[in-house]
Amino acid sequence: MTIYGDSQSGNCYKVQLLCALLDLSYKWIDVDILAGDTKQADFLAKNPNGKIPLLLLENGQTLSESNAIINYLAAGTALLPTDNFLLAKVQQWQFFEQYSHEPYIAVARFIAKYLGLPADRQAEYDAKQAGGHKALQVMEQQLSQTPYLVGEQLTTADISLYAYTHVADEGGFSLQQYPAILAWLDRIQQHAHYIAMA
Amino acid sequence: MTIYGDSQSGNCYKVQLLCALLDLSYKWIDVDILAGDTKQADFLAKNPNGKIPLLLLENGQTLSESNAIINYLAAGTALLPTDNFLLAKVQQWQFFEQYSHEPYIAVARFIAKYLGLPADRQAEYDAKQAGGHKALQVMEQQLSQTPYLVGEQLTTADISLYAYTHVADEGGFSLQQYPAILAWLDRIQQHAHYIAMA
Ligand SMILES: N[C@@H](CCC(=O)N[C@@H](CS)C(=O)NCC(=O)O)C(=O)O
Ligand SMILES: N[C@@H](CCC(=O)N[C@@H](CS)C(=O)NCC(=O)O)C(=O)O
Repeated sequence: MTIYGDSQSGNCYKVQLLCALLDLSYKWIDVDILAGDTKQADFLAKNPNGKIPLLLLENGQTLSESNAIINYLAAGTALLPTDNFLLAKVQQWQFFEQYSHEPYIAVARFIAKYLGLPADRQAEYDAKQAGGHKALQVMEQQLSQTPYLVGEQLTTADISLYAYTHVADEGGFSLQQYPAILAWLDRIQQHAHYIAMA
Repeated sequence: MTIYGDSQSGNCYKVQLLCALLDLSYKWIDVDILAGDTKQADFLAKNPNGKIPLLLLENGQTLSESNAIINYLAAGTALLPTDNFLLAKVQQWQFFEQYSHEPYIAVARFIAKYLGLPADRQAEYDAKQAGGHKALQVMEQQLSQTPYLVGEQLTTADISLYAYTHVADEGGFSLQQYPAILAWLDRIQQHAHYIAMA
């Protein structure tokens, strides 16, 4: 299989981390968002939504959306519960990530790290802070009760939320006030085959 | 089971429509967002993220996030494929909905319909239009090729995207330029047990 991505993107790192933990091999194709690679016709033919990461299977089928990709690759492994309710909880956290976490934390990080916090985006950057901290508080509350988001075991929900949480400081979010999150980051980093973000 | 929601919210309507199609019965509790119901301690104890819809099971367990709820309730039915790749495609469309569709189309509709398009939100409303049309174009392209988003059969992905697409005009998005979407809306409305939004 082939993965189209950018090693500095948390959404793409989710797929890299999942593949490392499961010891899956793949071909990696670097995509430069700022150079407009995702707006080229050949890329849009693979993902009409023009976003990375993108998974291309040997049979030519494609799959986009980071969380859908990692759930697909984790099917049948210990990283994805088989119990229906626990599986729904994994998805609950992943939809939370896409709706209530990533649009604040990842976007603030993008403005600061990729764009260098230009003056005309300062107000938007500032406006992201409250929503990001609200998402971190929701995670902190859960992680004060269970070692992983869905209970006792590492699941794809943890991978989805680890990606941008562990680099939240790059978007201006200090994690010092979230001890349960800090312990959880550390717990994930102890897993065999863990790889750091590029 | 009990569902906490607001009948004018598309995210909540997803759950109502799914339950109607599957003939599932439930207790409904009306939640008034504008009156601050989701910010009350008793609601936050059930969903720390303070959002509806929320599913409360007989055993006291709770599940939030509209798309996680409908996938949970549809497990084992014809609305959720069992094939791993098709299941991933359902999720791909649902994450697309939460990230690239709802934040434009549902938010524009909220500003116009709930808030009455106040002058201080006009710029935000206008800024939502391009992203909304981009999402509609991605759907149009798929629906020109297959009758439903994931292929030949109605799945929860269609329910997730139907919710705000069929009322997109209330957010200022005319669907007249999207014939495949219009045919798909009609196809969904023909299903036995279909119910309209309140
Ligand atoms: N919901 C998508 C978000 C993917 C996304 O926003 N990718 C960014 C890079 S991190 C991208 O491709 N941006 C280019 C663009 O939107 O034009 C996912 O989880 O995969
Ligand atoms: N990602 C969530 C979004 C839910 C959502 O935004 N619900 C709105 C009503 S449509 C809400 O509860 N808003 C109150 C708030 O955010 O304070 C889902 O799909 O369930």
